[in-house]
Amino acid sequence: MAVKAVSKEPITHPVLRRMVERLRLLLALNHASALMHWDLETYMPPSGVSDRAIALSEITALMHRITRSDWLREMIEEAKRDIESMNVYERGLLRVVEREVKIASALPEELVRKEALVTSKAVKAWEEAKRRDDYSIFKPYLGEIVEIAREKAEKLGYEDHPYDALLDLYEEGLRTRDVERMFSVIVPETLRILEAVERRGFYPRSHPLEDEAYEKERVRRLARRLLDLLGWPWSRGRLDESAHPFTIDLGINDVRITVRYEGRDPKRFIYSLMHEYGHALYELQQDPALAYTPLRGGVSLGVHESQSRFWENIVGRSPWFIPRLRSLASEELPMLAVEPIELYRYVNTVRPSLIRVDADEVTYNLHIYLRFELEKKLVEGSISVNELPEAWDELMEKLLGIRPRSPAEGVLQDIHWSQGSIGYFPTYTLGNVIAAMIWRSLGGPRAEKLRKTDLKGLREWLRERIHRWGKTFPPKGLIKKALGSEPSPEALVEYLEWKYVKLPETGELEEALAS
Amino acid sequence: MAVKAVSKEPITHPVLRRMVERLRLLLALNHASALMHWDLETYMPPSGVSDRAIALSEITALMHRITRSDWLREMIEEAKRDIESMNVYERGLLRVVEREVKIASALPEELVRKEALVTSKAVKAWEEAKRRDDYSIFKPYLGEIVEIAREKAEKLGYEDHPYDALLDLYEEGLRTRDVERMFSVIVPETLRILEAVERRGFYPRSHPLEDEAYEKERVRRLARRLLDLLGWPWSRGRLDESAHPFTIDLGINDVRITVRYEGRDPKRFIYSLMHEYGHALYELQQDPALAYTPLRGGVSLGVHESQSRFWENIVGRSPWFIPRLRSLASEELPMLAVEPIELYRYVNTVRPSLIRVDADEVTYNLHIYLRFELEKKLVEGSISVNELPEAWDELMEKLLGIRPRSPAEGVLQDIHWSQGSIGYFPTYTLGNVIAAMIWRSLGGPRAEKLRKTDLKGLREWLRERIHRWGKTFPPKGLIKKALGSEPSPEALVEYLEWKYVKLPETGELEEALAS
Repeated sequence: MAVKAVSKEPITHPVLRRMVERLRLLLALNHASALMHWDLETYMPPSGVSDRAIALSEITALMHRITRSDWLREMIEEAKRDIESMNVYERGLLRVVEREVKIASALPEELVRKEALVTSKAVKAWEEAKRRDDYSIFKPYLGEIVEIAREKAEKLGYEDHPYDALLDLYEEGLRTRDVERMFSVIVPETLRILEAVERRGFYPRSHPLEDEAYEKERVRRLARRLLDLLGWPWSRGRLDESAHPFTIDLGINDVRITVRYEGRDPKRFIYSLMHEYGHALYELQQDPALAYTPLRGGVSLGVHESQSRFWENIVGRSPWFIPRLRSLASEELPMLAVEPIELYRYVNTVRPSLIRVDADEVTYNLHIYLRFELEKKLVEGSISVNELPEAWDELMEKLLGIRPRSPAEGVLQDIHWSQGSIGYFPTYTLGNVIAAMIWRSLGGPRAEKLRKTDLKGLREWLRERIHRWGKTFPPKGLIKKALGSEPSPEALVEYLEWKYVKLPETGELEEALAS
Repeated sequence: MAVKAVSKEPITHPVLRRMVERLRLLLALNHASALMHWDLETYMPPSGVSDRAIALSEITALMHRITRSDWLREMIEEAKRDIESMNVYERGLLRVVEREVKIASALPEELVRKEALVTSKAVKAWEEAKRRDDYSIFKPYLGEIVEIAREKAEKLGYEDHPYDALLDLYEEGLRTRDVERMFSVIVPETLRILEAVERRGFYPRSHPLEDEAYEKERVRRLARRLLDLLGWPWSRGRLDESAHPFTIDLGINDVRITVRYEGRDPKRFIYSLMHEYGHALYELQQDPALAYTPLRGGVSLGVHESQSRFWENIVGRSPWFIPRLRSLASEELPMLAVEPIELYRYVNTVRPSLIRVDADEVTYNLHIYLRFELEKKLVEGSISVNELPEAWDELMEKLLGIRPRSPAEGVLQDIHWSQGSIGYFPTYTLGNVIAAMIWRSLGGPRAEKLRKTDLKGLREWLRERIHRWGKTFPPKGLIKKALGSEPSPEALVEYLEWKYVKLPETGELEEALAS
């Protein structure tokens, strides 16, 4: 079935039109709050932080109040009576708004405030604990955060497992059993592929270029030219620098990404940039007809992550992209002007490692599986925060054969839990799963758009199938409509098997690198 | 009477404490809206403008609604019953909030919306009219804007003259008769001083350095070093670039200024920077005890302008500052490493000119007088927008002896009217008047802090007398308390007479320049 072109007037039902009109204030506050977060990470003078925190908390509380308004609930009830006659956008709008109202109403203001208070202290405690490599500093806060997570789950409600309620906050409709099914395939298959990679030795465990230093001033131009190559619309977007790279959207025509130049191992900033580009493209290619409605914007963290992973890994680390990267780099960063096969091996090292953010495509999901298992057990109460470091280290050793020497390399490495984000990690693997499904839908190893590095073609394909829809369909429904089935891990296994086992055995790799 | 040190707890009355607590949301929205304006002028991608406009108008409307809330009006009435027992801060708070409520309530939402609509079109029409040098393009919009200004005056109410109501919007308590009295001294005295300057010839009409080009890249460092010299707190402030320089405060610890590098005539950016610095210092030196209350921030446009003019003209263009500027410039911008007397003459040219923003200290207020006279007549209906260009040109010729060759050099030169700002211009001269009163209070020609370029001493003096008080006292009251009398033009005449007539006749100038 052919997908219609951009809809001219997606929302026509009079009640929904009034609702969208009145929700415009909420979108404006969202816009303001996004800008305040962006500025906080990029340009704000350091001493401005306390005023900013107060302003953000006032505005967040107001948004929470508006979302729980009686008028909104009444409008939803009124509109639902006509749901049979509504188009997909209108149904999507009702679904999205009702979901937000439900979440905001389920969580009592007291609990929301308590979470904000605990996490603001917990982030600082986590920073100190990590710096001093001492889990005991963070432990009491983590205990409180797990308690709050459980309370949230009870308030939100769930069918099978309290963890379901937390997953759903980040990924509408994702359940514990979905994640379990995903990993029941991914974990053993990954271990099998990893063993094959190590046996064959084509993909190196490390590469001398990883130790090479570069000047930050020089690579700023490379970053901009890389975005030019990817078709970055400078009139609608920005690139800035921040300690932790991120993407933020202030609207369809104002999407901003950041990058961090560490001064060594240039692949780190290059792929971080392509990652954020993927997130940004999803926002930039929304249907303009959805602007100023709650339907605009990526539908979930998992689908968002699929976009960033697709551009970072499936496009950016593919052999066909290497000549493009090499030609840019030869001018701006001559250390990368090595033989194409060397550049390919440099950006595709594979090794079991302790740190998630340093992990490669093959081992990455094992890190997520570990976190998922531990989160689930914490929430159901089958392990305590006392037992957590030992459980972490054991599972790490079982999965990857290496054991953290200290908490900083293990249980303390990620900021997420200190921010109260429990149930978030699985969306990273879900993103990898969906990215591989996109790869398969494009033709897998034979995908013309990838083999020709047809970047415009890829953008259009993603726009039409995924981006333009915003939040119109729930995540599982969108993926089924766009890629033929709900998220399922087989394509990811197929992709890893192809790239990491089969590709180096054929002459195709050299052919691709010479293109 | 010694002024108390920073007050620890300015607001103790329980009703006022509750009021401040509830008004925190309004301050948060103000903070957000200031950041949105700053970003709009500095970093926003151009296509983001339409989303930004919608978000800003939603938030502005919300602020307007909050200001007119019944609960706020009731709290004011309740608190006023205890006014006799209140301290100066509490009385100030009541005055400030009541004034805002009164203004917001007087102007019907319909009129506010109409003004926003007309001015958004008028700014574009003005830009086109100025570019095409054709007043007829702007005239109908100006007609509507004058109509709206009259309507506003009627709604706001006034005693003597409808223009009073408009003046009061920008400068609490300023009346038409105050401005008339001011100019009745300033205009004849300025003409007399101007004649003396021209006769003597010490201050040149123009200077060869005005035509010199510089590289923007080089002066960025000079700008930062100039701010270092002035004691700029980089952890609490920023310097960025924008088409029109401005200052914006997001709180006591986040104050941002912008500058524009035009590529020639470096005194333009140097003094524009010192001007914005003066505005910023007023915000940076607020009493921290006023943070998150409606008392924080500059009390009026006139007092604000006095701070910018003081640093730009009275400090920055003084002979004592010239050696400091020269020593900075010798490293960063060697074209300025001329003899001190030449540098002094370059930054202090005096000539009758057609364009207000290019005007010098002596002639500047004549430009304001012209606008004041015409605005007053437009509002009272004694001239029409049809007659305006001719009236402009005639008064210009009468005052300065020169006549615009076309509307772009005359009636079309300023953006203010297109933005609906009628009654705003007089605050510029009021700023000059107050700046000169500060000069006199410091000791006039004998002011030690100026003669020693004791910048820290000047900052402290201003902080203690003016800055720390925020909006606690109304503008006239603050000036009387700080400088001994309500704003009055004699000090300005004395200052101009001293600097432009007496100083070059004595040996003191050379002594100052050699210091």
